[in-house]
Amino acid sequence: MKIDAQVFESLVEEFQQRVDKALDHWLPQADVYPLRLHQAMRYAVLAPGKRVRPVLVYATASALGIDLERVDGAAAAVEIIHAYSLIHDDLPAMDDDDLRRGRPTCHREFDEATAILAGDALQALAFYIISHDPQMTDDAAARLQMIDKLALFSGSRGMAGGQAIDLAAVGKTLNIAELETMHIHKTGALIRTCIQLVALSTSNLTRQQFKALDSYAKHIGLSFQVQDDILDVTGDTATLGKTQGSDSARNKPTFPAIIGLEASHEKAQELHQNALQALTIFGEEVDILRYISAWFVERKN
Amino acid sequence: MKIDAQVFESLVEEFQQRVDKALDHWLPQADVYPLRLHQAMRYAVLAPGKRVRPVLVYATASALGIDLERVDGAAAAVEIIHAYSLIHDDLPAMDDDDLRRGRPTCHREFDEATAILAGDALQALAFYIISHDPQMTDDAAARLQMIDKLALFSGSRGMAGGQAIDLAAVGKTLNIAELETMHIHKTGALIRTCIQLVALSTSNLTRQQFKALDSYAKHIGLSFQVQDDILDVTGDTATLGKTQGSDSARNKPTFPAIIGLEASHEKAQELHQNALQALTIFGEEVDILRYISAWFVERKN
Repeated sequence: MKIDAQVFESLVEEFQQRVDKALDHWLPQADVYPLRLHQAMRYAVLAPGKRVRPVLVYATASALGIDLERVDGAAAAVEIIHAYSLIHDDLPAMDDDDLRRGRPTCHREFDEATAILAGDALQALAFYIISHDPQMTDDAAARLQMIDKLALFSGSRGMAGGQAIDLAAVGKTLNIAELETMHIHKTGALIRTCIQLVALSTSNLTRQQFKALDSYAKHIGLSFQVQDDILDVTGDTATLGKTQGSDSARNKPTFPAIIGLEASHEKAQELHQNALQALTIFGEEVDILRYISAWFVERKN
Repeated sequence: MKIDAQVFESLVEEFQQRVDKALDHWLPQADVYPLRLHQAMRYAVLAPGKRVRPVLVYATASALGIDLERVDGAAAAVEIIHAYSLIHDDLPAMDDDDLRRGRPTCHREFDEATAILAGDALQALAFYIISHDPQMTDDAAARLQMIDKLALFSGSRGMAGGQAIDLAAVGKTLNIAELETMHIHKTGALIRTCIQLVALSTSNLTRQQFKALDSYAKHIGLSFQVQDDILDVTGDTATLGKTQGSDSARNKPTFPAIIGLEASHEKAQELHQNALQALTIFGEEVDILRYISAWFVERKN
């Protein structure tokens, strides 16, 4: 399919709606015991959001000619892992945020204990989906590798580790390399997982193609975070759906704080160019991934 | 092997030491970045404990003639899931406990944010182990089923759900059926998982044998909790390693509170007898499981 800006926009919308159906399918129903826990899980996951990670999963599948139903489980699982991490990051003991995706954070809408447990149960659900979804792949060994990747990249040497580094960095002066290390863990690891889960659901990918896609994922994972830091300075709370300026207010190291706003824009653009560079071995069939990279650095929320 | 009380005791000790080696192997080293997170994970998991769940895993394997190295991963994984649940249950927003396994709770020794993240990262680690450990089984489909069970029984319809029910019950009057439902989720689900993981690591088990073992697991899962409630009344803090009387102090429903201490002892004994009853299709090769059931209701900590 020939992609232009309009086609891209409608595909993103299609993917967002598609993963919401998958999430609705896998999340426990709100009228199932224990009610409050299940309500909190649905509240946090189904809140309006960009669904960046599922969109990346579907886009990669469509670029590689993989049927989308084969990656519905992966798309739902990465969004659920992301949602659990947001619930826990927002807790008073962590970032203490009141607003997320334009609504009260989970512990504000419910209570802290329910929010902690909702996050815990969501993490288990993500692994349940990948072990359970019959549509993903018939190759049990490949599925095990997916679980392996998801566990590794979301654990102490991935996303959870990144949040620990983030918390330890509050009030400290990081250099740019340290800041990048933090984000490579906190945001980058799960972005890379999106691509890897899709790659594992097919046997038609060469080693070179896999490495190119992984390199692409590393660059957009970081550009996404640079833009996040920029928006924390330049965005407004209503558009962001979370509190503008909350990073700098908490004295968190950010790209604009360390290298300035102008250089941060340049950094994001450079990462975008590197991401495109990584894709040169592919033809226009991966144009959708090129658009995603542009979306990451041009987005306003 | 002919089991008597002394042999049983030395086997329990052997299994406890064995799982500690497996845990040490799988836990990230304390000098690996991010340090504080990894230190907290090790602190919580390697704290002296009864290792009830791993002991049950090894005992089941040895009763079924399965090499113990095939279940080292399962033993470590269930203990890690248990440890993560304790870290989160002890948080101020949950049970607000200061003492666990005779030492300050994880959030007391480190801080709340680190404790939340340590729990999160431990959960991911448990799934990583089962997807990763080369010794468990060559059968990828069986391993996927293990992950499936672990995710289901530790999630919102299992352990995490049980904790949510527990929190909702504080200050309420439950009847005995409601109390049992809570414990079937909170404690029972993970005890059943122990047996199921071992059962999945062999193809030599009949459907009837599996059902008998699962029935046994259900009964000892509940008897364990009845005894826990009894010890909360009759034990002392030093022996328990956690604060004596903390359940009743928090106005939590317990077996002694609902049916009295005498009837609670009878209930524990009845469950023990039911557990033995479930094992009648087996011979003396499962004597070790009979001893475990007795241990659960006779223990003093």
